[in-house]
Amino acid sequence: MIRAILLISCPDQKGITAAVTDFVFRHGGNILHAAQHTDAQAGVFFMRIEWDMSGFTVPREGIEGAFQPLALRFRMNWRLHFSDEKTRVAVFVSRHMHCLLDLMSRYQAGQLPNCEISLIVSNHAEVEPFARQWGIEFLHTPVTPEIKVQAEGRQLAGLSAKGVGLVVLARYHQILSGEFIMHFNDRIINIHHSFLPAFVGGNPYAQAYEKGVKIIGATSHYVIADLDQGPIIEQDTVRIDHRHSVQDLIDEGQDLERRVLYRAVRWHLEHKILCYGNKTVILE
Amino acid sequence: MIRAILLISCPDQKGITAAVTDFVFRHGGNILHAAQHTDAQAGVFFMRIEWDMSGFTVPREGIEGAFQPLALRFRMNWRLHFSDEKTRVAVFVSRHMHCLLDLMSRYQAGQLPNCEISLIVSNHAEVEPFARQWGIEFLHTPVTPEIKVQAEGRQLAGLSAKGVGLVVLARYHQILSGEFIMHFNDRIINIHHSFLPAFVGGNPYAQAYEKGVKIIGATSHYVIADLDQGPIIEQDTVRIDHRHSVQDLIDEGQDLERRVLYRAVRWHLEHKILCYGNKTVILE
Amino acid sequence: MIRAILLISCPDQKGITAAVTDFVFRHGGNILHAAQHTDAQAGVFFMRIEWDMSGFTVPREGIEGAFQPLALRFRMNWRLHFSDEKTRVAVFVSRHMHCLLDLMSRYQAGQLPNCEISLIVSNHAEVEPFARQWGIEFLHTPVTPEIKVQAEGRQLAGLSAKGVGLVVLARYHQILSGEFIMHFNDRIINIHHSFLPAFVGGNPYAQAYEKGVKIIGATSHYVIADLDQGPIIEQDTVRIDHRHSVQDLIDEGQDLERRVLYRAVRWHLEHKILCYGNKTVILE
Amino acid sequence: MIRAILLISCPDQKGITAAVTDFVFRHGGNILHAAQHTDAQAGVFFMRIEWDMSGFTVPREGIEGAFQPLALRFRMNWRLHFSDEKTRVAVFVSRHMHCLLDLMSRYQAGQLPNCEISLIVSNHAEVEPFARQWGIEFLHTPVTPEIKVQAEGRQLAGLSAKGVGLVVLARYHQILSGEFIMHFNDRIINIHHSFLPAFVGGNPYAQAYEKGVKIIGATSHYVIADLDQGPIIEQDTVRIDHRHSVQDLIDEGQDLERRVLYRAVRWHLEHKILCYGNKTVILE
Repeated sequence: MIRAILLISCPDQKGITAAVTDFVFRHGGNILHAAQHTDAQAGVFFMRIEWDMSGFTVPREGIEGAFQPLALRFRMNWRLHFSDEKTRVAVFVSRHMHCLLDLMSRYQAGQLPNCEISLIVSNHAEVEPFARQWGIEFLHTPVTPEIKVQAEGRQLAGLSAKGVGLVVLARYHQILSGEFIMHFNDRIINIHHSFLPAFVGGNPYAQAYEKGVKIIGATSHYVIADLDQGPIIEQDTVRIDHRHSVQDLIDEGQDLERRVLYRAVRWHLEHKILCYGNKTVILE
Repeated sequence: MIRAILLISCPDQKGITAAVTDFVFRHGGNILHAAQHTDAQAGVFFMRIEWDMSGFTVPREGIEGAFQPLALRFRMNWRLHFSDEKTRVAVFVSRHMHCLLDLMSRYQAGQLPNCEISLIVSNHAEVEPFARQWGIEFLHTPVTPEIKVQAEGRQLAGLSAKGVGLVVLARYHQILSGEFIMHFNDRIINIHHSFLPAFVGGNPYAQAYEKGVKIIGATSHYVIADLDQGPIIEQDTVRIDHRHSVQDLIDEGQDLERRVLYRAVRWHLEHKILCYGNKTVILE
Repeated sequence: MIRAILLISCPDQKGITAAVTDFVFRHGGNILHAAQHTDAQAGVFFMRIEWDMSGFTVPREGIEGAFQPLALRFRMNWRLHFSDEKTRVAVFVSRHMHCLLDLMSRYQAGQLPNCEISLIVSNHAEVEPFARQWGIEFLHTPVTPEIKVQAEGRQLAGLSAKGVGLVVLARYHQILSGEFIMHFNDRIINIHHSFLPAFVGGNPYAQAYEKGVKIIGATSHYVIADLDQGPIIEQDTVRIDHRHSVQDLIDEGQDLERRVLYRAVRWHLEHKILCYGNKTVILE
Repeated sequence: MIRAILLISCPDQKGITAAVTDFVFRHGGNILHAAQHTDAQAGVFFMRIEWDMSGFTVPREGIEGAFQPLALRFRMNWRLHFSDEKTRVAVFVSRHMHCLLDLMSRYQAGQLPNCEISLIVSNHAEVEPFARQWGIEFLHTPVTPEIKVQAEGRQLAGLSAKGVGLVVLARYHQILSGEFIMHFNDRIINIHHSFLPAFVGGNPYAQAYEKGVKIIGATSHYVIADLDQGPIIEQDTVRIDHRHSVQDLIDEGQDLERRVLYRAVRWHLEHKILCYGNKTVILE
């Protein structure tokens, strides 16, 4: 079954849900999922609606045109996806490979069906044998301050050549330039190894140890020019205690990082995330 | 602001959401929350829709009539509530008073705004001073096999006199008769001190200790004639380990019982729960 | 059964555990619990040991003297408690009474057996009827910048008169002076309604809402002169999402605050907490 | 640094801790970790003690002899391990490979430093390319009722040839014979995809869906002859709701299974698990 997925945000007003569900209904679509949210404070309405394309009387390529009047009437921001499209993904990684290894183990287990992992990028050559083991193209881009511009140029060329639609920073310990980020607005997902906004920046586990917290966390977020400040997609926490050394926190935290990054990537690929302001709305 | 809350379940078919949201929209209602769910396997559709009554062109008492044609068309089961109605609640308790004490502390803190706790019922007289402390009527109904029928008769009379709409069994260690239950179908909430379906029946913490589980739980559910088998409303769990004695499990579990029962009561009072088959759908 | 509880911290070195357990063993004590911890980085050793006093050959009042040589040899910081001593507790509260109501509901349910709640202090007169309902003395101390010194003087006098050993700030929205804190060093427990160190200061739920976090938390800690910076005792978190308004966060958070504060108070009363640096070690 | 790890269980009596810590201390050992537990009900004492071997005056091969008198005196069950010994592990798997893929991703990330994964066994030939990708020997043993005895014979021969000390059933959907299990008593770890004792046997996710539970779980346990009844090592749970289909439960559950199995394997390899009765004690 091919499914259409429509994501909408617009100024809140009466009648939007009625109009959208009626649009699908009138053209013979069977609604499989419909979720909506209103941010009453900001006055913004969000909707995700998913329907079965079999029996839908508008052909795939005609839906945009058919929906346009309604979108104009409500001044909608909107995107249309189909369940048989696969997003091409590039994974950036430094020396800590646990998140990459985890994503690959899930990809191989069939838990990321909506994507094709097309490229692995690293400033460390030792990642290459792993990429080769999986049969995925590897791009080695050493980064030093002097050659950072060139390195990003090579990376962007690689992403473009592969038609990449989503960049995953799986513990990539380099700061991307604002220009790079602009090319992939709302399409770069990073994992930060703390419960943001606590412990921004380097060595968050050492910071957590110093502070004596009783719980540690991990945060996946879209990347914006401000370091560790982009819209949060997912967070999770785990209980620790005084017996944990910094190394223990690193070990425990790896488990969090793995699943917090995985969930963000999966939801993105399933078109469940809407960004606004500096926040996300996750509609299922 | 007075809000109307409409709960619907019906056979799944195209166009229900469109029809219902259009009904609210056409009469000038601003939708505050709308949640729906389809059980694809059972072919049943569920909806909860909440709207602002100010500006709604149909008066309160006319809504049922106005909605009737639509309900008939889709063969709906439906209920209509208003946010200014308060449900009268009776709490049944035996000797373990922690759940009662917790509910009362939340009631006094304003965390149960949609109800009036009107009656406390117990087979133990030592509960009375607590009821008096809060200024709530107390009904003492000792229960032995010989006088159980009379005891339930007195309880039903008390519930009827107070106009009780919800019975909460806050660790009430008596089994209610099928006849009693019939009077309050889907309106008796029980807390069971285990993660059902594990450890049905008596002494679940001792059972959990014997089994050596690493996590214990609590379950709130509607009461049906089958002991501990009614539709589950809410569950929660907490990690334990070998250091916990049975008494430690009882202590830890009290915390779970308190909040799992509270959430079920709160959701019921907010008209968020729909029952079907032997399950619940919680729509927010 | 009366139990002795010995809490120790000292520079780490070989033989401490052997010496302490031998001390208890030689005098006929049966060890019920023994927990230890070494902070390898700081080079500090911690121990909590609990034994049955029946059959112990040193009388209660003689233990300090008998233990002294060993304590000197290892340069120990140490405290000795007995299970039949009850700590007198004062609860400070402002207008938000949910934590107070929760503590009292647990106190009445027998979940705080090692204490006597002797005094309730508030800058708000509306707390008084609750105190009276429970039969607990109430001290009304309005606080404005001009009379803060006098107010604290009256509070300290009240605490002294009651022989209070632990001050619990159950959402008391006044900043205590350094002088006040000095009188109750490591004996004032505060509940902060965020996952510290995130969202220090006022309105943490509003801060969390603005930031778009997916999890909120609560933190109980000992109070030091630096606001919200004292040693963390306990934290807990709960998952939220975009559907939660600031008010929803406040509601959800109350549940966290209740149990995070309760656990800290309980552990303190059970003599399970050791402070060092700006951290805590919880030994069970 | 090489560490010695001593695991002890014996009838509870006074003086054990003192004697054991004194043994280590007298021979110049620096204790790194010491954890103990007494099951008061069963009258059994458990201890795990870990010390630095540098400076220990008894050579490695002499420790058993030196400790023997003490062990006899207290009638101890005991085992001695050293941190530089690597356990050889065999992983059994059927068609669902997510747990195997996860274990391998952690093994490659360095999260299982105390083992060598030496053999992968499956009744499904399609697992072979994965084993080959990792350079691990693969044993294909199709199982039908008629050839089950021979299949187990081939498996035992393979385990013996590789010197395997731990068998991990990573979703291996065959029931092992009592004879096979006897060869690896307390050395076979299974993952069951439910919160035991709920939903024993086949299709636990479908059972959970039918029951309408609000939380699902996973359980890792040692294998005994009784199906799904062995000593529980670790459990974890995740919240679900009415929106989850059986397939969603399977997807969510995979994440639980992965980490619940990983933790059990890791703790076993770190010699942190003691079995008694039908329970486990995990000492850190």
